[in-house]
Amino acid sequence: MNVETMTAFPHHPGALHFITFLSDFGYEAESVAICKGVLKRLAPQAEVLDVCHGIPSFDVQAGALALENAVPYLPKAVHLAVVDPGVGGPRRAVALQVQRGDYLVGPDNGLLAPAAAALGGVVRACRLENPALQLQPLSATFHGRDIFAPAAAFLASGGNMAELGGEVSPADLAGPLWPPPQAGPGWVRGTLIGFDQFGSARLNIRPQELQRAGVLKGAAFPGPVRKGPLIRIRGPLDAVVPFVYTYSQVPAGSLCLLTDSDGRLSLAVNQGSARRAFGLARGRSIILEAVQEQPSGSGGPHDRS
Amino acid sequence: MNVETMTAFPHHPGALHFITFLSDFGYEAESVAICKGVLKRLAPQAEVLDVCHGIPSFDVQAGALALENAVPYLPKAVHLAVVDPGVGGPRRAVALQVQRGDYLVGPDNGLLAPAAAALGGVVRACRLENPALQLQPLSATFHGRDIFAPAAAFLASGGNMAELGGEVSPADLAGPLWPPPQAGPGWVRGTLIGFDQFGSARLNIRPQELQRAGVLKGAAFPGPVRKGPLIRIRGPLDAVVPFVYTYSQVPAGSLCLLTDSDGRLSLAVNQGSARRAFGLARGRSIILEAVQEQPSGSGGPHDRS
Amino acid sequence: MNVETMTAFPHHPGALHFITFLSDFGYEAESVAICKGVLKRLAPQAEVLDVCHGIPSFDVQAGALALENAVPYLPKAVHLAVVDPGVGGPRRAVALQVQRGDYLVGPDNGLLAPAAAALGGVVRACRLENPALQLQPLSATFHGRDIFAPAAAFLASGGNMAELGGEVSPADLAGPLWPPPQAGPGWVRGTLIGFDQFGSARLNIRPQELQRAGVLKGAAFPGPVRKGPLIRIRGPLDAVVPFVYTYSQVPAGSLCLLTDSDGRLSLAVNQGSARRAFGLARGRSIILEAVQEQPSGSGGPHDRS
Repeated sequence: MNVETMTAFPHHPGALHFITFLSDFGYEAESVAICKGVLKRLAPQAEVLDVCHGIPSFDVQAGALALENAVPYLPKAVHLAVVDPGVGGPRRAVALQVQRGDYLVGPDNGLLAPAAAALGGVVRACRLENPALQLQPLSATFHGRDIFAPAAAFLASGGNMAELGGEVSPADLAGPLWPPPQAGPGWVRGTLIGFDQFGSARLNIRPQELQRAGVLKGAAFPGPVRKGPLIRIRGPLDAVVPFVYTYSQVPAGSLCLLTDSDGRLSLAVNQGSARRAFGLARGRSIILEAVQEQPSGSGGPHDRS
Repeated sequence: MNVETMTAFPHHPGALHFITFLSDFGYEAESVAICKGVLKRLAPQAEVLDVCHGIPSFDVQAGALALENAVPYLPKAVHLAVVDPGVGGPRRAVALQVQRGDYLVGPDNGLLAPAAAALGGVVRACRLENPALQLQPLSATFHGRDIFAPAAAFLASGGNMAELGGEVSPADLAGPLWPPPQAGPGWVRGTLIGFDQFGSARLNIRPQELQRAGVLKGAAFPGPVRKGPLIRIRGPLDAVVPFVYTYSQVPAGSLCLLTDSDGRLSLAVNQGSARRAFGLARGRSIILEAVQEQPSGSGGPHDRS
Repeated sequence: MNVETMTAFPHHPGALHFITFLSDFGYEAESVAICKGVLKRLAPQAEVLDVCHGIPSFDVQAGALALENAVPYLPKAVHLAVVDPGVGGPRRAVALQVQRGDYLVGPDNGLLAPAAAALGGVVRACRLENPALQLQPLSATFHGRDIFAPAAAFLASGGNMAELGGEVSPADLAGPLWPPPQAGPGWVRGTLIGFDQFGSARLNIRPQELQRAGVLKGAAFPGPVRKGPLIRIRGPLDAVVPFVYTYSQVPAGSLCLLTDSDGRLSLAVNQGSARRAFGLARGRSIILEAVQEQPSGSGGPHDRS
């Protein structure tokens, strides 16, 4: 089809009411609207829900994290996601069906993997390679419009996944972009995987992992009326901070560790930005250590070197 | 309920079609989408209208002003508003029913007060404290998702306000955050309450108050074909500027005073930013004085001190 | 009508389901929401699709380009567009009916002209001057709310264009803001008309014009497996760059010329910003010349002067 012949797909039983949409297209250009125009012309009955279009340009990891965090709260949908630095190159375009019944549509570059896992894992996957379900002539630079949006509209209309292209084994799909955390007696080493809109640093460590490694040895989790224990932070900064239930348990401007709303630990400054205050950058290793009972010369992972 | 059991509330007579949504969550993260996912899963029939998510982080006053300005033009709705620097602390979470028939849902920190007044005043208010109408486990940092969005969806579905929690007397609710203007013969002192997207400085003074105080003594209001009188501005700047009907009545780059589209006075630079040009900041007192018939040594409020 | 009496227009046969909306109102204020509130109160059945509200303030040319690029992909709609530095001054407010069946509503300052042409040209135009179809009292500064949104809602409800105001001859409407490209043997001179969200510089030159002028003399267009010929760029920079099919055919950080998704040529830096890398500014003339077979002293348009 082309832009003149772009008319609604037949509406089949099993159609999904929602299409969600995440991209790095930003809010200063018409790219998001062009994709939505394609969605609404091909799947007029679908309701489009924006996830976020403010993902930093080309930042697949940030897009993957945002999508993973959002999907558990979104209705069952076709989730269209486009953060695609390799557009026009050899990376595959794919659609994934996941356990919960949703579809994920986007480039096979790691963007979709964490969200697919959060929705129960991939049960079926295919390439997007059927020219009849793409907008022709295919551009080299805007596959969101020409390949991904038409595929999302096709699936939302109840179209048969097999018509989009050849099947891909779930095991062959690109995996997530950051390594899992490591732990030893009294320490857990994770990765600073991103920042929230206030500049709090998100770690890929969950509080249960602190407990398993003995960082919280015997100590209860923090609660609304009582802070938790002190924790030593090592990596791009070296500090001892309280593990708290809420920002307001430390003074404005002070650093704390808390469980973020996504269930992971986060380094935050109450009413401020940890990112700016400490010049933090994503991808850095962060080590969390027990402060109590930490013998000197214990040979932890943090030798000065 | 929790994220797995989060299904649609029953749809009662008296349900409202619209939910509007304002926050300081920004456009670079998935927080807005998570709240909208909760709204659409709990109240699938509701139509969600974004008011603004670009309120500066933690800026309750800017959020209150945006909401107050918007609600008169919005359809009758449940207005969900989340600018909540005290999240997790002792501030109350509330729902307000107002005279026009709308509901306002958010933290009781002054954010909702001016909008409630613009809609005729609060007729009934309650706390949000029913765990069955919240997303469990309750996070300490994301009450927009866990408390406020579920309550908004419940009310939009026609749910009974009394089920949300205990009644609050309207007199006990947090009031607006800025003081009313003061006036004397030939002068009005107000507050710079915010900026529009072009950097024009909004004052909490309406042109009728200039007339009552004699600042516009005898002079007609400006119109499309004729500027109004000169007005002296004192405060963070000291200038004499024309009171105009429209920006284009002064040269590009020049300062003027005009009635903004919200009915309040505004200090603007034609095709420029008053904020940047004069380094203005919100919260500053601004005095507007008559230029004609201003006797020297009149003992106005502007003695150099 | 006024804000209290603002109720739905009658819904006539021929109503359009979609209203699209572009503006320079930004995402940090409530202006967009106020206009949408007016749209939904006056045309409750219409579905509103945002095109973009991040157009730089007062930048009519950027708005015109975004709208022109978007409309071919959008469903048939009333396209509301407000970038209006002359608000309150003598510029006309207009509605245009175009060949495809859409309507365009906005200021007559060049904003609508390229999109109207992209939709087949204007078949009928009128002023917006009927006070009964405006929000009273008319503000001097917010015609998006008071004049344009009500007119868009009226047309989307199937209202008769003639009720909005007096007819305007299409020939009397403001034209597009940039000149067409010029060409001679071996060169094409165009204008840098804008940037995409990644900082790539959009030119108002299409690859077919390079071929007609002999800049691509004999050489095939680039494709997925083979770059095209080298092209000399003159103007704000002087460089010889490959004409490629996709960014990834040059190393990260390198400049290239490629056909953008809107069918025009674009100067781009792979995984970077051409705008920042070369300090480019819109409106500059850019000359594209053949590199092969370019005799010395050929008297092209690029003498050092």
